[in-house]
Amino acid sequence: MRKSHQVLLASVIGGSLLAASAGVYAQQAAAKPETLIKWRQSVFQVIGWTCGRVKLALEAAVYDKDEVIKAATALAAVSNSGIGSLFAAGTEQGKGWHDTATKPEFFAAGSKAGEIAGNLARETNELVKVANTSDVAAVKAQFGKVTATCKACHDDYRIKL
Amino acid sequence: MRKSHQVLLASVIGGSLLAASAGVYAQQAAAKPETLIKWRQSVFQVIGWTCGRVKLALEAAVYDKDEVIKAATALAAVSNSGIGSLFAAGTEQGKGWHDTATKPEFFAAGSKAGEIAGNLARETNELVKVANTSDVAAVKAQFGKVTATCKACHDDYRIKL
Repeated sequence: MRKSHQVLLASVIGGSLLAASAGVYAQQAAAKPETLIKWRQSVFQVIGWTCGRVKLALEAAVYDKDEVIKAATALAAVSNSGIGSLFAAGTEQGKGWHDTATKPEFFAAGSKAGEIAGNLARETNELVKVANTSDVAAVKAQFGKVTATCKACHDDYRIKL
Repeated sequence: MRKSHQVLLASVIGGSLLAASAGVYAQQAAAKPETLIKWRQSVFQVIGWTCGRVKLALEAAVYDKDEVIKAATALAAVSNSGIGSLFAAGTEQGKGWHDTATKPEFFAAGSKAGEIAGNLARETNELVKVANTSDVAAVKAQFGKVTATCKACHDDYRIKL
């Protein structure tokens, strides 16, 4: 009922990209809060996995450029995929794979939350660019910027597990 | 101990990409089996999330090309990131977020498993290409090929949960 109402709404407004986005996002947000929380917890596991691979490659005896490109590409694509929609209203509390580790302050942070997401998107995109060069020092420096972005958000908005 | 041995091994072999890959993958495989299983379960949640977004976009009253590009790009990047390493020896049984749903037959499938992974990588890459056009019918057709790839593997190698 809720889904079909949103589709109807999008259809009535029709035509603009905004309406289309509203329609798709509304349907996505109509997923159960626990599903959205599970998805976002999975997204951050994938971010952790891919970051870990870049870190291992930077520490390895022989630098594996292809490994870093693959990991960074997945990291950036996920970071740029619209994670914000997984923090929809109604997901401030609840359990996905485990109780949400996002502090209530994050949901109240407004444009600050958007700014953090934008930083992650930008720095990971830059990592892909640098990964495609053979400048390992530059990859290391840029990877530092990515993890600093992670840490800034964790420090302020992640509950210590 | 196991990690440093592998790094040493890579260092001794040195120089070739193969050695570098072996070093990085060996370190990654040195992660606990439950961590690898948790990562792969997370990867498939992200694949499910992004596929769901493409499906919703195709069903919406107004087609949102940008939404499909973002979802398909994340889907393809994750599918091409080297998921195979998350099915390392030692992960045939065990619990990540939940008991593994991968049948033992998958680990014994050898080149067949690699072929399935290759199909997913290829079809999702093609989806990104088509998503960047405005040919919605072509997106729908290609998305059908992606989900057929998922289904083929699930039918043979996924335990019904």
